[in-house]
Amino acid sequence: MEKPLVGIIMGSDSDLPVMQEAAKILEEFGIDFELTIVSAHRTPERMFDYAKNCDKRGIEVIIAGAGGAAHLPGMVASITPLPVIGVPVKTSSLEGMDSLLSIVQMPPGVPVATVAINNAKNAGILAAEILGIKYPEIKKKVAEYKEKMKKEVEEKAARMEN
Amino acid sequence: MEKPLVGIIMGSDSDLPVMQEAAKILEEFGIDFELTIVSAHRTPERMFDYAKNCDKRGIEVIIAGAGGAAHLPGMVASITPLPVIGVPVKTSSLEGMDSLLSIVQMPPGVPVATVAINNAKNAGILAAEILGIKYPEIKKKVAEYKEKMKKEVEEKAARMEN
Amino acid sequence: MEKPLVGIIMGSDSDLPVMQEAAKILEEFGIDFELTIVSAHRTPERMFDYAKNCDKRGIEVIIAGAGGAAHLPGMVASITPLPVIGVPVKTSSLEGMDSLLSIVQMPPGVPVATVAINNAKNAGILAAEILGIKYPEIKKKVAEYKEKMKKEVEEKAARMEN
Amino acid sequence: MEKPLVGIIMGSDSDLPVMQEAAKILEEFGIDFELTIVSAHRTPERMFDYAKNCDKRGIEVIIAGAGGAAHLPGMVASITPLPVIGVPVKTSSLEGMDSLLSIVQMPPGVPVATVAINNAKNAGILAAEILGIKYPEIKKKVAEYKEKMKKEVEEKAARMEN
Amino acid sequence: MEKPLVGIIMGSDSDLPVMQEAAKILEEFGIDFELTIVSAHRTPERMFDYAKNCDKRGIEVIIAGAGGAAHLPGMVASITPLPVIGVPVKTSSLEGMDSLLSIVQMPPGVPVATVAINNAKNAGILAAEILGIKYPEIKKKVAEYKEKMKKEVEEKAARMEN
Amino acid sequence: MEKPLVGIIMGSDSDLPVMQEAAKILEEFGIDFELTIVSAHRTPERMFDYAKNCDKRGIEVIIAGAGGAAHLPGMVASITPLPVIGVPVKTSSLEGMDSLLSIVQMPPGVPVATVAINNAKNAGILAAEILGIKYPEIKKKVAEYKEKMKKEVEEKAARMEN
Amino acid sequence: MEKPLVGIIMGSDSDLPVMQEAAKILEEFGIDFELTIVSAHRTPERMFDYAKNCDKRGIEVIIAGAGGAAHLPGMVASITPLPVIGVPVKTSSLEGMDSLLSIVQMPPGVPVATVAINNAKNAGILAAEILGIKYPEIKKKVAEYKEKMKKEVEEKAARMEN
Amino acid sequence: MEKPLVGIIMGSDSDLPVMQEAAKILEEFGIDFELTIVSAHRTPERMFDYAKNCDKRGIEVIIAGAGGAAHLPGMVASITPLPVIGVPVKTSSLEGMDSLLSIVQMPPGVPVATVAINNAKNAGILAAEILGIKYPEIKKKVAEYKEKMKKEVEEKAARMEN
Repeated sequence: MEKPLVGIIMGSDSDLPVMQEAAKILEEFGIDFELTIVSAHRTPERMFDYAKNCDKRGIEVIIAGAGGAAHLPGMVASITPLPVIGVPVKTSSLEGMDSLLSIVQMPPGVPVATVAINNAKNAGILAAEILGIKYPEIKKKVAEYKEKMKKEVEEKAARMEN
Repeated sequence: MEKPLVGIIMGSDSDLPVMQEAAKILEEFGIDFELTIVSAHRTPERMFDYAKNCDKRGIEVIIAGAGGAAHLPGMVASITPLPVIGVPVKTSSLEGMDSLLSIVQMPPGVPVATVAINNAKNAGILAAEILGIKYPEIKKKVAEYKEKMKKEVEEKAARMEN
Repeated sequence: MEKPLVGIIMGSDSDLPVMQEAAKILEEFGIDFELTIVSAHRTPERMFDYAKNCDKRGIEVIIAGAGGAAHLPGMVASITPLPVIGVPVKTSSLEGMDSLLSIVQMPPGVPVATVAINNAKNAGILAAEILGIKYPEIKKKVAEYKEKMKKEVEEKAARMEN
Repeated sequence: MEKPLVGIIMGSDSDLPVMQEAAKILEEFGIDFELTIVSAHRTPERMFDYAKNCDKRGIEVIIAGAGGAAHLPGMVASITPLPVIGVPVKTSSLEGMDSLLSIVQMPPGVPVATVAINNAKNAGILAAEILGIKYPEIKKKVAEYKEKMKKEVEEKAARMEN
Repeated sequence: MEKPLVGIIMGSDSDLPVMQEAAKILEEFGIDFELTIVSAHRTPERMFDYAKNCDKRGIEVIIAGAGGAAHLPGMVASITPLPVIGVPVKTSSLEGMDSLLSIVQMPPGVPVATVAINNAKNAGILAAEILGIKYPEIKKKVAEYKEKMKKEVEEKAARMEN
Repeated sequence: MEKPLVGIIMGSDSDLPVMQEAAKILEEFGIDFELTIVSAHRTPERMFDYAKNCDKRGIEVIIAGAGGAAHLPGMVASITPLPVIGVPVKTSSLEGMDSLLSIVQMPPGVPVATVAINNAKNAGILAAEILGIKYPEIKKKVAEYKEKMKKEVEEKAARMEN
Repeated sequence: MEKPLVGIIMGSDSDLPVMQEAAKILEEFGIDFELTIVSAHRTPERMFDYAKNCDKRGIEVIIAGAGGAAHLPGMVASITPLPVIGVPVKTSSLEGMDSLLSIVQMPPGVPVATVAINNAKNAGILAAEILGIKYPEIKKKVAEYKEKMKKEVEEKAARMEN
Repeated sequence: MEKPLVGIIMGSDSDLPVMQEAAKILEEFGIDFELTIVSAHRTPERMFDYAKNCDKRGIEVIIAGAGGAAHLPGMVASITPLPVIGVPVKTSSLEGMDSLLSIVQMPPGVPVATVAINNAKNAGILAAEILGIKYPEIKKKVAEYKEKMKKEVEEKAARMEN
């Protein structure tokens, strides 16, 4: 694998079924990424080190998924100057509302770019849009992806109308 | 003004007291921006044209604020390949929960990078972090800003301890 | 099929199981309708064209269903002078509260006639009530339908009492 | 006054500051209306009689506003074959969420066309859109109103840009 | 059956699995009751007649269950001088929060004695407690029931401790 | 004062402005009551004694108001065989939703007859309705009260129509 | 068994599958505990006696789990001077939000140390942390447990990275 | 000041009006404490150092207050073996629900002892109850405090009854 541009991290391996959608869409865009577990609560030093060093290692965007009192995206954002995308993972209570509020309601000074509950795919697309301002070939792929989505809807619409 | 890199748009002039915090922090970072009203509901064609053309005009990040059934950020995101940051504006009912859910719960394919309710300042900082992956001098300013915040907290802490 | 009076649109084919209840009840009332997919987020131009032209094509009421950050009903309502009925579709998170708030909390100037979560049947009945102010035979059918409902409840009540 | 086409009713005179916005916009559209208090809970017979007879009296659309356990719109809708628009009035607790859910979550068979919390203006516009399918001059006025709104936003945008 | 003291009504036969718990506990207390369907929305006249006449027929307490925009308990309470107990039935969306708020948030002048979501058993016990202020033998049975509950908990506790 | 039939208790003297509405309406009905502070959390023994003895002292209905984690109504209901009416008092956070859920969501076996948030007036009326099944003169007063309410609404309606 | 330091109580035996996680983790820490049913609502005297005497019997921390209108933790906390940890048990409605608010929103003077919905394991760990300020060997075990968690995450991370 | 036993920390000096209630009650109990600002988001290293060292410095209980995406209590709890009490501070949106969920919904392994929204006084009392298991004189003071509260309620009750 090339030097990854996107770091996908999650608080627990139980978040993998949700978070791998980010990986899949990045693969589809041909964007190199890394994928690992970094728990803010169970491995705070590891989280610190990851956030401190990802910039130097060449990572340009971080995608962080977590559930419940989901501190991982916000804590990483407090340490790195890179843009951090947060994915609220739906856990067994409260329909993911706790994950959403814990990630999105960050105080002035430390934003997290939050996407919809369990929508890691959109985190991947947002990462591509962000990289697209620097890498024209990625921007082109995002545009092509949107075009493909449009076609698919139009085909489905045509089938439904007949 | 230089050619702006960030487009700040809002659904109504009543959103200006909230949204100008994004403008202020971009000024502090020395990032050129434009600021206008684009209502998804009252000026749909204008919204369409804005979203269609901002990329060609050199805009690289869009910040869109709206309240209630807040469709502006999501609709702009559906048209442009640029990253769109959404600011849920708190209106007179439901404490801004309606604005937040209308902005963040986007379907697969069309992300909006959502920040906290009324937190346009963070939208500005997030825009700077995104631009920072392309413009090293902006990344440096973000890092300096975080350093300054840290100092301020430490000074306040020192005062409180004495 | 005759020239349709009602346009039923939905953001995704996954909304069909919910939205076909609107179709069924319109069939029961003998009201011609059309049914298709129009995604505000994935096919914004198609949405624009649909909303712009439905009036000229003879459509008199639009029923639009969508889930999550459900922008379809509100965006169509912003473009057409026709009455738009919104159906909040329940998706996998938040019990449909996000869909409801995204549809009902429209700003002054652009109403969406919102019905209950997943209740496309009521959207069909409301369309019939609206058409009934112009077409006396439809109004009569709505009145007969309400009478039939009443009878069914009374029969069930009689069975329960014995 | 001419024979009114729209009946505006509310559960209490304390709802008048909210509900008169519906009256104002109907006046602006030149649509005759009547305005009175009909409490589902304190005057159930009056509510019954009103709902039973409004159709015969020439009313074509009903706008009903209520707060808390807001039963007025739904009860009227259960009795009349006319379309009923419900306005959830924000009361002193729960930010109007109780009013909204009590009005919108109607069971299959009896729809209420619900608008945003406290947004009686939109109820008036929706009534005009509904009447517009029968009365071309009203449809024209709705289209002009939307045009006027657009102009106002564009003027405000022009001022903000300068 | 003796002349019933309690009338158990529900908006739909789909509420029966929930509401029969009220019937069961009244049977256990030896209190005569009647059980039927009265829909506020689909049979408004029937609801009106029921509420108007139950007092004269010897009913002393009404238990009314309904879901969603649950108007039955409140409408019956607006017509009868008898105490009305409301049971919020959990339907397929919003976890029963809509049912609860539609029943409990009644305006000044027309109370509904609301119990927990789906807890028709407690509605039966509350009816017995209310009748108990008039019929000493019912009050005695309520006291015995509470004693029996206590014993059952103590036995379960003893088993768990060993 | 005569021997009181209704005991009005509240968790704190800060609840008095809300709870005195129950006292006022009972006075209007000519029903004797007592009014005091009984805190489940700060005076648990006092709460226990109050609940244990109110029945013997001739009290027939208890009205208990509390806010936040509002345990007073439920705890009293667990001890006395009398019907207990709960008033959720709105405190400074969460709009009274915490008070409402803490009071209404009682487990099987121990009902609390819950009224709307801050609606102690309705608690008084409900107490009168309950007493009315035993005391015909109270039932008559409740019926007169409802008649008076109706008249007031009709007068206000007449004024609004002119 | 040694004299227990922790008392684990629950409102119903149906809470056992949730609450036994507290027991398991205390066993893992080698902390003696007792486990029983104490229902605030069905056995108020038993609850009173338990809370009154646990201190004298040598218990130093209480863990209390309950669902719905969950009064057990707060009532025990009102009687004992010991720290009380509350576990909100998720029941069949409202996703456990009712349990959470009934336990955490205690009034000034009577705290309950609330943990996450259904998270009895954390209640056990919190009990160990509290005991750890007095018993150094328990503090050591808590530290070792945190170290073990960290190792497990690191191993899982290593596997995911390969 | 003696060597403090309790560390009171908060995310921002704007939290001081809420958090000083913890300080006041600790003073009343004669428990030495320290009070400072530690922002998880703006001073992550400082937070890390504080959490890492407070145990060695003799602190035995930590009280941490924060609002919005309130990560301070949970992050400190992930680093220290000491019991951490979390105070959800109510900020300008969402009535403090975001703060509450971000603090209480911690994952298995890392508990935070959460008290009610804005209720720092209870955090102080809980800290005293925890210390009371080690220091008999503190336990005695807690018992006296509860006794004093009881007296105050009884006096207020006596005044209200007369």
